[in-house]
Amino acid sequence: MAAFRTLGPKAAAALDEELMSTGAFSIDQLMELAGLAVSQAMYTLSPPTKSPNILVACGPGNNGGDGLVAARHLYHLGYKPTMYYPKQGKNELYGRLRTQLEQLKIPFTNDFPAAVGKSNWIIDAVFGFSFSGEVREPFPAVIEALKTSVIPVLAVDAPSSWNIDEGPPQEGPGKWYDPAALISLTAPKPLAKWFEGRHFVGGRFVSQEVADKYGFDVPTYKGCDQIAEVGSHDEKL
Amino acid sequence: MAAFRTLGPKAAAALDEELMSTGAFSIDQLMELAGLAVSQAMYTLSPPTKSPNILVACGPGNNGGDGLVAARHLYHLGYKPTMYYPKQGKNELYGRLRTQLEQLKIPFTNDFPAAVGKSNWIIDAVFGFSFSGEVREPFPAVIEALKTSVIPVLAVDAPSSWNIDEGPPQEGPGKWYDPAALISLTAPKPLAKWFEGRHFVGGRFVSQEVADKYGFDVPTYKGCDQIAEVGSHDEKL
Repeated sequence: MAAFRTLGPKAAAALDEELMSTGAFSIDQLMELAGLAVSQAMYTLSPPTKSPNILVACGPGNNGGDGLVAARHLYHLGYKPTMYYPKQGKNELYGRLRTQLEQLKIPFTNDFPAAVGKSNWIIDAVFGFSFSGEVREPFPAVIEALKTSVIPVLAVDAPSSWNIDEGPPQEGPGKWYDPAALISLTAPKPLAKWFEGRHFVGGRFVSQEVADKYGFDVPTYKGCDQIAEVGSHDEKL
Repeated sequence: MAAFRTLGPKAAAALDEELMSTGAFSIDQLMELAGLAVSQAMYTLSPPTKSPNILVACGPGNNGGDGLVAARHLYHLGYKPTMYYPKQGKNELYGRLRTQLEQLKIPFTNDFPAAVGKSNWIIDAVFGFSFSGEVREPFPAVIEALKTSVIPVLAVDAPSSWNIDEGPPQEGPGKWYDPAALISLTAPKPLAKWFEGRHFVGGRFVSQEVADKYGFDVPTYKGCDQIAEVGSHDEKL
């Protein structure tokens, strides 16, 4: 069985904090590697020749920042990303990441539901491992569009609106938003146990020592890949 | 003919400046992508199963910083890097990049010539495009060791001691240090016209618009690669 160990939200926050203090990483570095990993997962799922149009939905925090970086790399991989970024967080880094996209003339839209139908894939970078409680405006309409659309979605770290520890919202099977693919950054979060689609991990900057300390597994990366496909929690690999 | 256009030292400095002002990139981001590209060129030249031991010589400036980042990625790709970093520059980033290596218990050596013979490959990240004039202490012994050793070398942006505009030092053919491989970051510098080994470009963050403005070519990158092999200046590809 491929059952993997997971990293809860408090441990994930502590690990980020440790990487940026003891580890001496800057958030610029970590976000660059995270976003690059997301773009490589997208490429593995469907290359730009097949799926040129990617709609990237970004939330106000670091999950949205990962989406901003991913979109830039998607552009350089040959995709045509479109951004939905309605609520920019305070960190000045987000402004710089946005400018980097504007320099490439990547379009920003305010109408997420209208953009869905013009997209081959959607990247959900709305909420990450620090999400809890309720989905705030203007994101309920985004979650609703993700739930009802037939366009495949790659979720970054968490399918937005899922509880990080307890998985999908309790509305009965088939009723929740269930993306086609998930990329777990650094390590899978507990919600990944409820996820049955294609599952990648992007964290080729974590040492075995750090993984041991936090109790998760470093997947087997191939070649120069920044991602590894790990399968579902109960799947035989 | 594969003759490529090059980027002189003043233009390269202006482009870096533009990327970090108008382009809103941080040096952390650019150096992370540069170092990652270097590690991928190394992997293409010889994977860790064949060449586990890599000696990374880093100079005091940004070329050395690229080497520090490359070494971290080499570690995560499965190599066993050893660092030679005798003269750390002032930018606080270099200190953080060094700490990131120390956290991985990557060894630092003070004796470059002694370390050469224990290495399968050497990465020359001593001087980059801002080099001019003379090779200062303690680096003449490094250049001498590179010149006389049989261990293959991957040079980052420039074979150290070469004149950026005018190529190898004028000591007669076969007398200068001539690395097996070169990775040009962002775009080849003029000295690349004198280089006949395997040649890579790492700059998958530059738009066609920027390349046009500065008068160089964006190579054709494959898949998710952060590097492209471009061949020698006069080689038919």
